[in-house]
Amino acid sequence: MDPETLSKAFVEHYYTTFDANRAGLAGLYQDASMLTFEGQKFQGAQNIVSKLTSLPFHQCQHQITTVDFQPSGPAGGMLVFVSGNLQLAGEQHKLKFSQMFHLMPTPQGSYYVLNDIFRLNYA
Amino acid sequence: MDPETLSKAFVEHYYTTFDANRAGLAGLYQDASMLTFEGQKFQGAQNIVSKLTSLPFHQCQHQITTVDFQPSGPAGGMLVFVSGNLQLAGEQHKLKFSQMFHLMPTPQGSYYVLNDIFRLNYA
Repeated sequence: MDPETLSKAFVEHYYTTFDANRAGLAGLYQDASMLTFEGQKFQGAQNIVSKLTSLPFHQCQHQITTVDFQPSGPAGGMLVFVSGNLQLAGEQHKLKFSQMFHLMPTPQGSYYVLNDIFRLNYA
Repeated sequence: MDPETLSKAFVEHYYTTFDANRAGLAGLYQDASMLTFEGQKFQGAQNIVSKLTSLPFHQCQHQITTVDFQPSGPAGGMLVFVSGNLQLAGEQHKLKFSQMFHLMPTPQGSYYVLNDIFRLNYA
């Protein structure tokens, strides 16, 4: 898969899953995976998904504004940088966010998220 | 240097240099370096610095709001994720931005920027 197709397919899959069934994100992370969410650090698929499923809102919708991507080096990784809006159920205003992912290939020919950093940019 | 010290020292150096003497950023990039600036792609130190020095504002000041960092894998790289405000000379309003860097170690024990992605988040 070329880098653009990979990045856009990942972004589509990630946020669709986040908005519909956050627990379903577990398969994208591994033990070495890291999440920094608004400055809080988590490591490992289980800790990361525990954080994501315990966020203080039950329904949300991500609207993606930009997706940028670059290969991260000879190991075959891909950096994906996203900006967009986050609409929480029952809230009038959208929150701007930006997020970066570092995708790494698996031996099975798929990808997992090694690095994930999320920040809200309060507008 | 520990990851936090490295990341914060890099961020301080990068934006101080950007605001005072953009051409001085050339030493942070190498031939393999990539910049995606508001979706436009550049590769190599010379092309990257040509872009940065030809931006349509001569004076600016970056104000950093957050710095997050994570190691990027066994090759010793460091991901640095920054959010902040960009004040252009003569403009009343600040622009919000977010930017990510992938720092890689050099054989000399220093670091260079392999990946750089910059986006304005219009507030």
